[in-house]
This record gives sequence, structure tokens and C-alpha cells, in this order.
Amino acid sequence: MHTAEDLLQSVNEALDRENFHREPRELYEPITYIISLGGKRIRPVMLLMAVDMYGGDLQLAMPAALGIEIFHNFSLVHDDIMDRAPLRRGKPTVHEKWNANTAILSGDTMLVKAYEQFLKLPEPLIKQVLTVFNHTATGVCEGQQLDMNFEERVDVSITEYLEMIRLKTAVLIGAALKLGSIAAGAPEEDQQQLFDFGIHTGLLFQLRDDLLDTYGDAAVFGKKLYGDIIANKKTFLFLKAMEFTSGKERRKLAELYANPSIAPEIKVKKVMDYFDDADVKKQTEYKIQEHYELAREAFMALKVAEENKKPLKNYTQQLMERNF
Amino acid sequence: MHTAEDLLQSVNEALDRENFHREPRELYEPITYIISLGGKRIRPVMLLMAVDMYGGDLQLAMPAALGIEIFHNFSLVHDDIMDRAPLRRGKPTVHEKWNANTAILSGDTMLVKAYEQFLKLPEPLIKQVLTVFNHTATGVCEGQQLDMNFEERVDVSITEYLEMIRLKTAVLIGAALKLGSIAAGAPEEDQQQLFDFGIHTGLLFQLRDDLLDTYGDAAVFGKKLYGDIIANKKTFLFLKAMEFTSGKERRKLAELYANPSIAPEIKVKKVMDYFDDADVKKQTEYKIQEHYELAREAFMALKVAEENKKPLKNYTQQLMERNF
Repeated sequence: MHTAEDLLQSVNEALDRENFHREPRELYEPITYIISLGGKRIRPVMLLMAVDMYGGDLQLAMPAALGIEIFHNFSLVHDDIMDRAPLRRGKPTVHEKWNANTAILSGDTMLVKAYEQFLKLPEPLIKQVLTVFNHTATGVCEGQQLDMNFEERVDVSITEYLEMIRLKTAVLIGAALKLGSIAAGAPEEDQQQLFDFGIHTGLLFQLRDDLLDTYGDAAVFGKKLYGDIIANKKTFLFLKAMEFTSGKERRKLAELYANPSIAPEIKVKKVMDYFDDADVKKQTEYKIQEHYELAREAFMALKVAEENKKPLKNYTQQLMERNF
Repeated sequence: MHTAEDLLQSVNEALDRENFHREPRELYEPITYIISLGGKRIRPVMLLMAVDMYGGDLQLAMPAALGIEIFHNFSLVHDDIMDRAPLRRGKPTVHEKWNANTAILSGDTMLVKAYEQFLKLPEPLIKQVLTVFNHTATGVCEGQQLDMNFEERVDVSITEYLEMIRLKTAVLIGAALKLGSIAAGAPEEDQQQLFDFGIHTGLLFQLRDDLLDTYGDAAVFGKKLYGDIIANKKTFLFLKAMEFTSGKERRKLAELYANPSIAPEIKVKKVMDYFDDADVKKQTEYKIQEHYELAREAFMALKVAEENKKPLKNYTQQLMERNF
């Protein structure tokens, strides 16, 4: 069994071997740039962990891991245009460093490059893998659209929010694990359980991000607190507070949250009064616990030796505990 | 053998059967919109003609035809954002009717939907078809990047221009014909000859568009003349005139062409004086003739009964003669 560190290293080495230095350089430089910004490579590492769990061939499955990572970076480049984000991993986003046209077209090329990776898999795997991938990619686009729709709406329900983060964030983690298990020839039920494990893990990662942005320890969290409240982001916390209030109070909270002219520190204080009244910290912790249990259940159902499960278990645990 | 009209109808019926009416509707409505704007469906019709030429199964190959058409529409949606085009087929472009974010994300979804089509082909074809398609899609992105680069440059050579239109326009026509012949199980040499035929046909279509924009008969051409000159487009005609001049005259032509404040009718007249001096009309006709001969050569080399070649021959001839 390989450790997360080993797998991360082999993913980064494989990405380095991919030659994106082609002509026209205006198209390919942004691809090299965004990929080399790094990140934790959670999705490809998890994919390879699933391969390893079933004694599969890591090198054979590597193109699927790269395909997932390239796709993830494609989605970051296009999402950053749509969200007008100036920074990604502390560096200028592609559309900031170059321009929106370059970001659109380099992103398109990355999506094609992701598909190119999957074609390097053994031929009998290709149709099944691409069917899963197409379904996933469509889901990620739908999730981004829902996220943009929610910015314009005041009446987003908790159910709708969970469906949005499932599509936008969780399905790609689920798909990574499922694709790894497919590449390793795992039993079909295990493929599904790993997918479910990934979904619940992805959901709780996002819910935990929502929680920590308001209730985290700034020193440990690694970024400033209250960014979501200040930016008027419809997080699980806000939607729970909205659900708890009604009538005039509900309208007041909605107006306060959307008010662009109120001083940030006053806005945060007032919003957090609502959050505390609705006990949203505990509510979010409950929801996280719920998905933690569901993830655990799926994980326990895997028909593979406990020894083989350990790396993925430890890795996920470590990702979850970071920042708490 | 089926006629172009039959094939066009079956493509449109198959597109109608594709259900793009899904949720979230903000994502899928633009897809239905751009696809239903119609157009001549040249690429899928040509693909099916290649299938028919070798006695292949049209229904079996239909997903490849739809994949090519959906990809083509994806590229139109994203190119229109980059080119800030207000109209497409006389109707508002997607980014005009909705907004740029919607156009980016609906376009992304269309690219995934194109791949979904190819997965509906018989499994033994999938890897080969997708290899051709990935190569083509990458080329189309590279062509669009070159086109954008050329807008910023004054020193574009004829060779560079031909490479740009080969990638941006011709490879997709070549790929359509090649994919049709692959789906029908045509001999490998014929697959390559059909690809070459498509490349030269695509090039001459584009060169002819360049020619007609300046020297066409407005009544027959169907749109206003001189759009390229007024919009400062680096066409084959302009680049030939630049090639012909040198020194001070060359700089004067470049400045005139790029001058945004000169009255259109005066600009057209002055530019056309340069064009006439350089005999660019005849030069362009020579180039068109050259690719016509090369297309003809590739077509004649196809190892299939003359009878079977007729529909594609007539169809291409008809497309070429339209507007002359």
C-alpha cells in the first residue's frame, strides 16, 4: 500500500511529464500556469488510493487520475471568470493574468486534454470510464449554474443548497473514487459504495468550510474569517438562519445580508446574532455529523481487507481534521 | 444512396429527438436555442454522406454526426463571446440574449454533450473515433487562438493565415468525412483521402468567403460587401496585398487598414486600389483553384464506385457554386 505522500508525488511527477508547452503559446501557457499552481491534488490522490485498495495497477490508472485533475483545473479556470475571482491559490487567476478570452479558450482546451487522458486507459475500460466522467462533468456544470442562480434568489432552500454543493463539489470526489475502483476491477457494489463515500465526504468538506469561515479559529483556518458573510454568500449557515426566522425578521435578515453599504464588522456582528439565535453552529455540526455517519457506513460496507482501507481512511480523516 | 436533403432532414429530426430541456433551465435553454437556429448542417450531412458512400449504416453513425454538430455549435457560442459578435444566423448570440457567464457554461455543457454522443457508437469504434475527435477539437481551439493573435499583429504571413483557417475551419470538415468513413469501415487510405478532401474543401470555402466579401455580387452574396475591409479583418486578400507592397507603401496600407476613424466608403475605395495593384482577386482565385485541384485529386483517389461518390460530389459542388 502506498501513502498519500507517495501518491501525491507520483501525480505531480506525471503532471510534469505532460507536455503542455506547445504552440500557440498564448493558448498553452495558461494551462501550464494553472496546473503548476499546485494544490493538494485530493481527487487524483483519492482515485489512486481506490486503485491501490483493490491491488490495481497505479501506472495503468494514472491517466484517469490526471484526467480528473485536469478537468478540475478546467472548472476552476472557467468558474473564476464567472465569479470574477482575482486570486486562486494566492496567485492571479488566468483571466486576471491574461484576459477572459484566453481563460475561456485555454479552459476549453483543458477539457479536451482531460478526455485525451482517459483514452490512454486500456481500451476495455474506456466506455465505462467515459460514461461516468460525462455524467460527472455534466453535474459539475449544473452545480455551477445552480450556484449562479442562487446568487439572484432570496428563497433558496436547504435541500436546494445541498443539491447544489453535491453537484458542484461532491460528485467529482465520488467519481474519482469510483473511477479508481473501476480501473482496479473492484466489485460493482464497492464501486457504488466508494461513490457514496465520496459524495458524503465532499458534502461534509463543503459544510465544514461553511462552518469554519464563521466559527473557525482564524490562526488555524489559514484565511480571514467572515468572508462568506461579507460577500453575501448563501451558505448552509445563512440558509439555516433564514429557515429559523419568518415574516418581518426573515425579511430583515435577508436585507441585512444583501446590504452592500453596511460596514463589514457591523454586518458580521448583526448577522451572527441571527446565527446564534437560530443555533446554526450546532445545526451545521449535526449536518456534518450526519454525512460523516453516511460516509462511514459506505466505507464499512466495502468488501476489502481493513488493512487495505487504511490509507484512504487516514487521508480523509486528516483532510477533515485539518483546520478544526 | 441518400440525397443531401434526406440526410439534412434526418439530422434535424435526430437533433429534435435529443432532449436538452433539462434542469437547471438557465443552463439548457441556450443549448436548445443555438441548436434550433439551424444552419446548413454541412458537417453532419457530409459525415453521413461518407457513411453512405461505403454502404454504412446511417442510424448507427448518427451519434457521430450529432456529436460533430453539437461541437460545432459549442465552438460558435464560445467564439461569439470572444469576438463580441452580436448576431449569429441573424439572431442574438447566446451571450447577448443571456450573458457571458451563461454562454461560457452552456458552451462547456455542449462540449460534454458532444462527447456523450460519440459514446453511443458501437464500442469497437469509440477509441478510434474519439482519438480523431480530440485531435480535431484541439486543432479548432488552436485555430481560434491564432485568429485572436493575428488581430494584434501586423506581420501575419500567408502561410500562417492558411494554417489558421486550416485549424479553425477545415479540420472539422475533414474530421467529419473521416469519421463517417471510419463508422462505415472504409479502407484506411480512403479515410485519409476523405480527410484531405475535407481540408482542401474547407480551405477553399474560406478563401471563397474572403473573395466574395470584396468581389462578390451583393445581391447573390446575401450580405453586405466589404465587411472584412471595414472591420480590419486580416483576410487572404489583405495579406496578399501586404505581401505585394513593401517599405513605405506597406506601412501606409497597414495604417489605412487599421484606421478606425476613416469613413467606410473611403477606406474601401483606398484599400481596393491596393488590392487591384496587387491583383489580389486573381491571386485568390489561383489559390482557390489550387485547393480545388487538390480536393479533386483526393476525391478521385477514393476506391469506391463513381456512382457512390456522386451525392458528396454534387453537394460540395453546390456549396461551392452558391454565391458565385
